[in-house]
Amino acid sequence: MIKKCVITAASPSQRSLPMQTLVDRDGGRKTALQILVNEALSAGATEIAIVTAPGDAAIYGPAVAATHKHIYFIEQDQARGYGYAIYCAKDFIGNDAFLHLVSDHLPISRHSGGKTCAQQLVEIANANTCAVSAVQATREAFLPNYGAIGGKHVAGQNGVYQIEQVLEKPSPTEAEQKLWVSGLRAGYFLCFFGIHVLPASIMPLLASQFSGAQSGSLSAALAQLAQRERYLAYEVQGRRYDIGPTYGLLNAQLALALSGKDRDTVLTHLVELLAT
Amino acid sequence: MIKKCVITAASPSQRSLPMQTLVDRDGGRKTALQILVNEALSAGATEIAIVTAPGDAAIYGPAVAATHKHIYFIEQDQARGYGYAIYCAKDFIGNDAFLHLVSDHLPISRHSGGKTCAQQLVEIANANTCAVSAVQATREAFLPNYGAIGGKHVAGQNGVYQIEQVLEKPSPTEAEQKLWVSGLRAGYFLCFFGIHVLPASIMPLLASQFSGAQSGSLSAALAQLAQRERYLAYEVQGRRYDIGPTYGLLNAQLALALSGKDRDTVLTHLVELLAT
Repeated sequence: MIKKCVITAASPSQRSLPMQTLVDRDGGRKTALQILVNEALSAGATEIAIVTAPGDAAIYGPAVAATHKHIYFIEQDQARGYGYAIYCAKDFIGNDAFLHLVSDHLPISRHSGGKTCAQQLVEIANANTCAVSAVQATREAFLPNYGAIGGKHVAGQNGVYQIEQVLEKPSPTEAEQKLWVSGLRAGYFLCFFGIHVLPASIMPLLASQFSGAQSGSLSAALAQLAQRERYLAYEVQGRRYDIGPTYGLLNAQLALALSGKDRDTVLTHLVELLAT
Repeated sequence: MIKKCVITAASPSQRSLPMQTLVDRDGGRKTALQILVNEALSAGATEIAIVTAPGDAAIYGPAVAATHKHIYFIEQDQARGYGYAIYCAKDFIGNDAFLHLVSDHLPISRHSGGKTCAQQLVEIANANTCAVSAVQATREAFLPNYGAIGGKHVAGQNGVYQIEQVLEKPSPTEAEQKLWVSGLRAGYFLCFFGIHVLPASIMPLLASQFSGAQSGSLSAALAQLAQRERYLAYEVQGRRYDIGPTYGLLNAQLALALSGKDRDTVLTHLVELLAT
């Protein structure tokens, strides 16, 4: 059973992102970080570590203090990339498998009030007792933004794939040669969604990535993981919204508002705005 | 000539509001506070004071440091309401008239690239050498959110009124009896927009408001000002977006996006989102 969650929120260029406020589907106002903490709680996590840039624990802390008791902040000592940020949670993780969420993507499940994306993923992980990454069929044009996987459909499990290959931001040519997945529409690839269930054994694989001055890449460590252990991908029922790009927050907020309880109010306002 | 500007951003319940990020009409990402600082600069302000709750200067400072050199932070010693926050800028103001913006409202001028709302207001103030408040014809239903004025149209000046009465959040009955303005559509009143040009003489009027434990109300001080000095209202060409309420930020962001250079991109995304 997955009980621990690591949220990485350590990017020096996106320090204000976790503190951006959105109106959730339930009409309540929450910071992006609170929405992610709720996502982790929904999946059964009871201990949550948030990895931040130095100094940011003091800013993020008050924003999530009321959400859950067992939230720990880990300030990374150096900015050495995404892989290193996860590695900073090594002591927190110990020997346990853990749920991992990234702070620059918001998951929105297909059905409001249904199972959240993290909940769906943790169920697959618990049922298969192995690592699972959430993926989404993604148009070729967006490959430069994501890690992508190649693999084979697992018989009898809808939307579940055994991962054979992981590439970080592959070129379309590379993706076509190495990441072919049967059953996907032409021009689509399975890209990471920003939610993973990872084993403790990912930590030494990450450590081997940033020897010397190198930045740590999660995808490179996951590619190694796929060679050593059973590692699955699952197409979650939902969508991920990258809140980092220019209109990322607006798009995520619109998606939340138009799939939540205030859909009619927001639509009405939208129509008024377009009419003026 | 107006050279000083006071931005109040001291509400204890809205401390994260000035740090919310929006995409401006030019496609650039700015915090709400940066957008307001730009508004002040557009109107010719060269020295800007931002009044904050204790401790917030350290958070807001880095967000506006790159925007302008002469930005000063004033941390209020007590939370005693909006009027007191303005009064905290007394020493900064000295004997000068000043532009005043509130941090929970974003002004969006009618024409992208045309005169900003603050610019329009300061021009009226400079031409008339007196206090001027920006107002907007506002439906009766929204009276509980705003200060409202009554007065007479000034002959020969389009959209300019001599203010005779100011009431804070009047009831519809009170407004009908005391705030009638000729030429407005029935059921509409002239409500404050969140931008004012005020004389230094507002400071003692404010001080008289919060004797004892009372909170200071700007509207009560402005009502006194109208009895003593020439004080005008001007219907600016633009709209104000209150970013405090639940969908306030979304509405402001949509208004910016749909009136700016990325209108087509945002509309396309909106249509896609509504189709799924």
